[in-house]
Amino acid sequence: MDSSQFRDAAHTAIEDIIKYYDTIQDRPVLPSVSPGYLKPLLPTSPPQEGESWPAIQSDIDKFIMPGLTHWQSPKYMAFFPCNSSFPGMLGEMYSSAFNAAAFNWICSPAVTELETIVMDWVAKLIGLPKEYLSEGEGGGIIQGTASEVVVTAVVAARERILRGRLSDMKDSEEKWDKIAEMRGKLVALGSEHAHSSTHKAAIIAGTRYRSVPAPRATDFAVTGAALRTAIEECKAKGLEPFYFTATIGSTATCAIDDLEGISEVAKDYPDIWIHVDAAYAGSALVCPEYQYLCPPIQNFSSFNFNLHKWLLVNFDCSAFFIKKRRDLTDTFSITPSYLRNEFSDRGLVTDYRDWQIPLGRRFRSLKVWFVLRTYGVSGLRAFIRNHIKLGEYFHSLLLTRTDLFTVITSPKFALTTFIINPHPRYAPSAATTLPGPTHEAYLNDFTTDAEARYQAEVNRVTKEVYERVNTQGEFFITGTVVCGNFLIRVVSATENAEERWLKRVFEVLVDEAERVVGVKEA
Amino acid sequence: MDSSQFRDAAHTAIEDIIKYYDTIQDRPVLPSVSPGYLKPLLPTSPPQEGESWPAIQSDIDKFIMPGLTHWQSPKYMAFFPCNSSFPGMLGEMYSSAFNAAAFNWICSPAVTELETIVMDWVAKLIGLPKEYLSEGEGGGIIQGTASEVVVTAVVAARERILRGRLSDMKDSEEKWDKIAEMRGKLVALGSEHAHSSTHKAAIIAGTRYRSVPAPRATDFAVTGAALRTAIEECKAKGLEPFYFTATIGSTATCAIDDLEGISEVAKDYPDIWIHVDAAYAGSALVCPEYQYLCPPIQNFSSFNFNLHKWLLVNFDCSAFFIKKRRDLTDTFSITPSYLRNEFSDRGLVTDYRDWQIPLGRRFRSLKVWFVLRTYGVSGLRAFIRNHIKLGEYFHSLLLTRTDLFTVITSPKFALTTFIINPHPRYAPSAATTLPGPTHEAYLNDFTTDAEARYQAEVNRVTKEVYERVNTQGEFFITGTVVCGNFLIRVVSATENAEERWLKRVFEVLVDEAERVVGVKEA
Repeated sequence: MDSSQFRDAAHTAIEDIIKYYDTIQDRPVLPSVSPGYLKPLLPTSPPQEGESWPAIQSDIDKFIMPGLTHWQSPKYMAFFPCNSSFPGMLGEMYSSAFNAAAFNWICSPAVTELETIVMDWVAKLIGLPKEYLSEGEGGGIIQGTASEVVVTAVVAARERILRGRLSDMKDSEEKWDKIAEMRGKLVALGSEHAHSSTHKAAIIAGTRYRSVPAPRATDFAVTGAALRTAIEECKAKGLEPFYFTATIGSTATCAIDDLEGISEVAKDYPDIWIHVDAAYAGSALVCPEYQYLCPPIQNFSSFNFNLHKWLLVNFDCSAFFIKKRRDLTDTFSITPSYLRNEFSDRGLVTDYRDWQIPLGRRFRSLKVWFVLRTYGVSGLRAFIRNHIKLGEYFHSLLLTRTDLFTVITSPKFALTTFIINPHPRYAPSAATTLPGPTHEAYLNDFTTDAEARYQAEVNRVTKEVYERVNTQGEFFITGTVVCGNFLIRVVSATENAEERWLKRVFEVLVDEAERVVGVKEA
Repeated sequence: MDSSQFRDAAHTAIEDIIKYYDTIQDRPVLPSVSPGYLKPLLPTSPPQEGESWPAIQSDIDKFIMPGLTHWQSPKYMAFFPCNSSFPGMLGEMYSSAFNAAAFNWICSPAVTELETIVMDWVAKLIGLPKEYLSEGEGGGIIQGTASEVVVTAVVAARERILRGRLSDMKDSEEKWDKIAEMRGKLVALGSEHAHSSTHKAAIIAGTRYRSVPAPRATDFAVTGAALRTAIEECKAKGLEPFYFTATIGSTATCAIDDLEGISEVAKDYPDIWIHVDAAYAGSALVCPEYQYLCPPIQNFSSFNFNLHKWLLVNFDCSAFFIKKRRDLTDTFSITPSYLRNEFSDRGLVTDYRDWQIPLGRRFRSLKVWFVLRTYGVSGLRAFIRNHIKLGEYFHSLLLTRTDLFTVITSPKFALTTFIINPHPRYAPSAATTLPGPTHEAYLNDFTTDAEARYQAEVNRVTKEVYERVNTQGEFFITGTVVCGNFLIRVVSATENAEERWLKRVFEVLVDEAERVVGVKEA
């Protein structure tokens, strides 16, 4: 494909993409394909001779489109959003054109330098404490995903505590034996509602993992007291807590851990690396009304949020901020001869490869630069506030049908969770087989068999409604289990989100719920 | 930015990209900026109000272009190539449009299914043993980089051996203590010329690391005998080797480890996970004349190569093939409630998140699909063979000036390494201060002071020539240190590589070498 063929091909691709975006709301958000749909449709090996672009392009519509889940659709209300934007796409276009494995500064100085600059922009934009800016001992790096960030933090934390404890030992077999012994006692901690990435990171790092309770009484947040108790319990068993993930916006309910309280614990246990995972909700910090959350972060070691979730930067782009960059480079820096160069040797430049697990890096700061400049601070704030308002609107709809729905967590960062009531008040006959507490109380402790049966019934109907909505395919929502209870999560935060889609998903939920609980014919 | 503004912006971006590619050979491959060049040129925070695309776009040329290293230039002959292609860019365009954090099948079935299909295409294309196809117990996954793959393999290997040894113990504190004790004895192995990613992976996995000798006598390859000795030495010390990286195409000289011999060792030590890292050279396996390397791989656990290096797929795209996918999922699978879905639960689908460290995934198979179809098998073979021929041509040029250059490794996968002779035969006066062996022998053991001085002088002049070439900026080459000797590496394998550029870089090398060794005025 020469450059003139590329021009033609790229123009057709852009038209395809524009058509996709302009009509995305008309497609069912979930595909209806069955597992294995694609294999019979494609050849079993690559073609011997090259094919033309029109032949390839027409297969996208034929074979790929039917198998896509449309995350950019306003009918996508599952997991968390993964917003793209046109300036983000332009960033990816240039990045793929300036293609390089930019693992150190000399591999492409602009890749490193723009990243440092835009990460400082982002840190200021979300009101992070100044310790996280590059001009001091900290700074930001773009990694792929929050889960990659968490592994990076856990491994660096593991090595930091070992280095600290064994700084007086020379490198020797004895030191390795001692390291092995100490490493075997290390425990990573996370909220019981922390994203599974912390547990997975502990597996990868080869350390133990314990979860810290975060019950409904604290709105599913880890308190300072709960963390302190968990630490002390570990220590009493001869174990060594070395890491804790504090969460701003948990996956299940967008719970916010008690950062102030945790901050006090951090002062008493300076060896423990506290990382704040704000993967989704961190984007809300662009609005000053959320920045009250930031001051305690100065007492922690690191922070991350995903600009690819709620800040319009195409996937992947997780911003990882570190208070002392040496905490990363002391662990991840290895410099074989073929990676040496005078700029790195003289310490004049940042080599981000030493801040991360992989070596090579894409030019991801371009898309951040384009997005921040295209929207501006005002545009980004308006974008977030619109979703916050839509979350409140959806919540207000749920409150019009308290016979069918019980809100479990009212909207936080645009996410509302709720359950289906098996006992609609206007259909008392449906309640006869289910004695027990009223639904408002169902998330409390269950002490009697009748209450346990009631909980099981709530879970059953809630899960059934959730499954029926997704099977119908117009909307995509997610369920989750919190403290033994199945909840439906609805979060509408795509760029084209509007009240009318929330009104419509509410109608679908009412319709399915009425069928499931027997008010309407199934 | 609405879709019509995006159309205009994208068209201008495509024109920019075409212009960049059409003129890339006219630019100095290395930028002349100094560390920190960009910071004074950009604002210190994002703009309050959004900016227009023309304002943003014009800054690319002004601020970014001067700081780029041009990896797609035919004058780029450093490290290994990182080839882009127009169909690869189209793949990235669609991928960023279909933007999703596709961590499991239901998140976008096409993302998973196309990946399985094209990885099977690639496995067949390079002649991998059939055990690595998805229809059996194996399969391929696209990861970002070879270094990410190696960490994934090392961690999975660590857990596999522990699972195997402790399968009869129930989950308990005692088991954790036992795991900690055994883990402390584990040793990962790699050739002394293996990429630093294996050593870094051992650090991340928290295991010991030992390198296996690969001297010049074996052309810098690890032999089966050397690996066996290393394993036995570890075992004699009470340590447990659990992993070895075998290399096809080492970073320094493109050495190929003795896969047949290593394969015999693998049979005797089935607990040891042997991974083949063919990051760069693996692409050559598309040519049947290289596939003689593949049969021993059936005795190993995994294999990877980077399609983003030498197979025209834009960065990032590392193909990781595994013989038993359970070796990955048994370690990396964690399924919290919010990731559960009926398709995954019923085991009908592949969830690639369980084959890797991060959770979210980009739609990278599209670009592979586009590239394989655009070039076809014939086109890819022609592409590789052209570079092989160019490597031989460059070698032949070096041989015309054996007075100035000594070839250390003749072209393998288009890479040649050489040193500068401090004693040009036609300038005997320059030799007077340097007694000692002839340059042909300099890589042997140095037993006398005179020989050591000679080696130091070879290193000095070779390094100086290398630095002068890069400072001049027309070409970008890399140096490396092998067994104490500084070598210059030249590998020309970009899509627009041509004889004339190798002729030209040879002239530059001759010119600089003559100056450095004193034949010509410096």
